[in-house]
Amino acid sequence: MDIALLLYDDMAPLDAVGPYEVLRNVPGWEVRTVAPRKGEVRSENRSLGLVADHALAEITNPDIVLLPGGWGSRTLMKDEEMLDWVREVDRSTKWTTSVCTGSLILGGAGLLEGKKATSNWLVLDTLADLGAEPVGGRFVEDGKIVTAAGVTAGIDMALHLVAREAGPEVAQAIQLGIEYDPDPPFDSGSPEKAAPEIVELVRAAARG
Amino acid sequence: MDIALLLYDDMAPLDAVGPYEVLRNVPGWEVRTVAPRKGEVRSENRSLGLVADHALAEITNPDIVLLPGGWGSRTLMKDEEMLDWVREVDRSTKWTTSVCTGSLILGGAGLLEGKKATSNWLVLDTLADLGAEPVGGRFVEDGKIVTAAGVTAGIDMALHLVAREAGPEVAQAIQLGIEYDPDPPFDSGSPEKAAPEIVELVRAAARG
Repeated sequence: MDIALLLYDDMAPLDAVGPYEVLRNVPGWEVRTVAPRKGEVRSENRSLGLVADHALAEITNPDIVLLPGGWGSRTLMKDEEMLDWVREVDRSTKWTTSVCTGSLILGGAGLLEGKKATSNWLVLDTLADLGAEPVGGRFVEDGKIVTAAGVTAGIDMALHLVAREAGPEVAQAIQLGIEYDPDPPFDSGSPEKAAPEIVELVRAAARG
Repeated sequence: MDIALLLYDDMAPLDAVGPYEVLRNVPGWEVRTVAPRKGEVRSENRSLGLVADHALAEITNPDIVLLPGGWGSRTLMKDEEMLDWVREVDRSTKWTTSVCTGSLILGGAGLLEGKKATSNWLVLDTLADLGAEPVGGRFVEDGKIVTAAGVTAGIDMALHLVAREAGPEVAQAIQLGIEYDPDPPFDSGSPEKAAPEIVELVRAAARG
């Protein structure tokens, strides 16, 4: 299985690196990083650099494409070179996937038209504007399109993909390998569970 | 709060990027990446590059130091330049922390002598050899030393640190921001919960 992992400026690194740590551990699977321009990209607040080993033109037919989210997705969802590439690789992928606001890029490319999909809870309305039917949950599979909710949901989605393609035993072994037995000190990980004032705090921060 | 995030060759990127995504989102906190040599480091299987913006000598008194794990920790736990740096920054840190086998570097530096600590479940015996008292759980706080269990446990530990330093509301807002409402498709994230044949599979893979 050949996986193309998109990296870009102003991304949220965990959106990519969570699934990366799951997918790279499947025997025989290969993850390759790709970006609009080969070389270093910087995270949302510039404090972390990641390296894209390939430019878009170098990756033509991955089995899985994964689009992470982050502020930069607002730019890429209108970038024709990016959208052309997403449409092109989607023609031959087995799975076309996104994490968090990476789904906006899928939507910008017209690939969510009439599809059930999810994203960061703050942008579900935008997803609807792009023709998708927004639904809840950690990830949503509709045909070969799999979209994950915000940031850490990419880990759950990646384990699901591994189970689908390599079997539940491999997925369980990888879950144990990354000791994914989560125990957050608070129960504040979704807008339904967080206190209203916390939800408002995050909404306000997202407005900038 | 000034955070030094160690990067190195043959690391497990999620060990660093999980906590990074939590800590970088605290208002006023700054994360700086540091490695034995400034520039690109590659993950365990070489498929992901991350960029260290600073060499060890450039980072002298962070408030928090975080040491991620990965195969490369076996080398670094015996690397005198590395261990000298860890002992040096520990003199003035408020928190000295590790994720997964990053604790072996702390142990190599002599900082776990007589301390309760944790690590990847596969190396708890090694931790004891280094003078620590290995205990279970997602993370262990003993004085200013906080050690997390394998890979994803770093996210839980980082939320704990944020709660301690910036208060529970900030930690909860960040948990919501990264939608950390985990729902793994299997319950296989610890050796106590995984099926015995899965545990054996992971043990065998770790033996190489």
